[in-house]
Amino acid sequence: MAETPIRFGILGCATIARKLSRAITLSPISSLYAVGSRSLDKAKKFAAENGFPPSAKIYGSYEAVLDDPNVDAVYIPLPTSLHLKWAVLAAEKKKHLLLEKPVALNVAEFDRIIEACEANGVQFMDGSMWMHHPRTAKMKEFLSDSKRFGQLKMVHSFSSFAASDDFLKNDIRVKPDLDSLGALGGLGWYCISSILWAADYELPKTVTALRGPVLNEAGVILACGSSLQWEDGKTSTFHCSFLSNLTLDITAIGTKGTLHVHDFIVPHQERAASFSAASQTGFTELVSGWVPLPSQHVVTTDLSQEACMVREFSRLVKRIKESGSKPETKWPSIIRKTQLVLDAVKESIEKGFEPVQIGD
Amino acid sequence: MAETPIRFGILGCATIARKLSRAITLSPISSLYAVGSRSLDKAKKFAAENGFPPSAKIYGSYEAVLDDPNVDAVYIPLPTSLHLKWAVLAAEKKKHLLLEKPVALNVAEFDRIIEACEANGVQFMDGSMWMHHPRTAKMKEFLSDSKRFGQLKMVHSFSSFAASDDFLKNDIRVKPDLDSLGALGGLGWYCISSILWAADYELPKTVTALRGPVLNEAGVILACGSSLQWEDGKTSTFHCSFLSNLTLDITAIGTKGTLHVHDFIVPHQERAASFSAASQTGFTELVSGWVPLPSQHVVTTDLSQEACMVREFSRLVKRIKESGSKPETKWPSIIRKTQLVLDAVKESIEKGFEPVQIGD
Repeated sequence: MAETPIRFGILGCATIARKLSRAITLSPISSLYAVGSRSLDKAKKFAAENGFPPSAKIYGSYEAVLDDPNVDAVYIPLPTSLHLKWAVLAAEKKKHLLLEKPVALNVAEFDRIIEACEANGVQFMDGSMWMHHPRTAKMKEFLSDSKRFGQLKMVHSFSSFAASDDFLKNDIRVKPDLDSLGALGGLGWYCISSILWAADYELPKTVTALRGPVLNEAGVILACGSSLQWEDGKTSTFHCSFLSNLTLDITAIGTKGTLHVHDFIVPHQERAASFSAASQTGFTELVSGWVPLPSQHVVTTDLSQEACMVREFSRLVKRIKESGSKPETKWPSIIRKTQLVLDAVKESIEKGFEPVQIGD
Repeated sequence: MAETPIRFGILGCATIARKLSRAITLSPISSLYAVGSRSLDKAKKFAAENGFPPSAKIYGSYEAVLDDPNVDAVYIPLPTSLHLKWAVLAAEKKKHLLLEKPVALNVAEFDRIIEACEANGVQFMDGSMWMHHPRTAKMKEFLSDSKRFGQLKMVHSFSSFAASDDFLKNDIRVKPDLDSLGALGGLGWYCISSILWAADYELPKTVTALRGPVLNEAGVILACGSSLQWEDGKTSTFHCSFLSNLTLDITAIGTKGTLHVHDFIVPHQERAASFSAASQTGFTELVSGWVPLPSQHVVTTDLSQEACMVREFSRLVKRIKESGSKPETKWPSIIRKTQLVLDAVKESIEKGFEPVQIGD
């Protein structure tokens, strides 16, 4: 018996929405149902080019998608400054919410979005695809293994790509009125979420931005970094940039093990993703080599990470729809912590690189 | 016609001296000639166990090695606090000087050592073996290639090993009277030298230690980190630790390329060492993969990196001995910069993580 799929509406025709449309198609329990744009022509073109079925609803506004009673869930890839308005409205219209990151301009905004989701019993998830790749679970297994990895001591995360001149002039991610968090929101978000992931979502005590961030003329961050300190002595650094060659690293180092991954946000290849793990590594006699050598692990997947994300989100939505259960709170909790640290980095930059204490 | 080898004397029987003894034997233009220890028995045992020829001179003091007129050069692996005394004395006795790192407790001490070397026309080099691995030259080729790597934007260096309980109690590197620089001297030295290497030895403008260093009860650094900023906007971070699993990373990111190496100080294997290089990396259509993929480069070597170091040092000494030329100033210049940055990190820690400006 065929299952009823979760019917998705998409707000806007952002480039990233093309990738998500494909993921919704590939995910076994979801379907592309509607797309809305302020321009009906753009919406039509988007639907035609991105595998929407002939029966799909094409709307000339975002509101119309939210007003369609057959839409179960919406994917919102709008500029960050529009998230508060549209995410709250979507929740109020009882639409489950897959919201592109950065989810909000600050944690106060995020809390308003989550309040709306809770009040309306809708599921919330952000668009961090890498969290759903089976490799991520495999890496976590390694980090959680006290024999192989020990206790986490240090995480370093790096996320950059070399934006084109056109991007640096015209992309929404460099515009103060659209995505004022710039590289910190667009890439630093991933760094922070990877650090918290490695730290089992224990919040750091102190966040201190690194000196030397690069801002554009409008004050939007193009590159920045931060260090983080935990109560138990764990430390972390990250750096994010629109100005350096594509690099997506996590290095996590424990008392007994080391993890390296160089393509954590987007794997080098869709079907097979690797990481390197070293355990209880020492030197050979006369310090002329290592023993044991680090090992390479390859994790294959039939479903791309974004399709895994859509599948997981749809599974949670289905559970709510079919059994009346409560939304899963894991995702809002993780995402709120990410936003808290991001806010602290921004505050530290604004305060001249003073340390910022993290509250709840 | 057989060349006359450079005759080495070794001061002390440190563990690292075993590796160097082998390197001196392997290097084609050097020979093990003498060893001195405060204990004649220890010196005898060391010589017997480390390939010294039967003709080698075994001395019951460091002075005796320096007084032997047939010793061309000395290798000094003594605790850092003894470097000033013995390095200056060696130079005054006209012995060329291969000095283990960290070379001095601070740049003022280092300057006195270099003054003595210059006054006596002897070559100075530190014991940073990795600088002499042919891989290092290959990696530098990549970093210097404006088409493949572009302009350096960010370097991250990490150097750690998980010291045993015995090490943390008894090793000279945790004793305030012997190696008071602790992990900063023992491992951070490498991080700093790798960062300066990547930055073509341009000194950073500002050095700011990261919060959260770990000190032992005697105040010796067991783990610490720092960020560095250059005039042109380049930035860097490093972290060094005696408390984390063996990890020896350089990540250098330019406007067009990315370099990863995970065993920069001691290669995983003696004869073949690899690094990864990515150039002008972008995403595939729909951001579902990378194009082009990073490439792995393997550099093979017949001679271990420490033997390459001894060979290069011996070559410089030979040139001075045979043609009366001046000592090569490249190495003291590089090493002084490393020490300057190291001093700044220490000062920043002592000043509560305030930024420290680097002078000359």
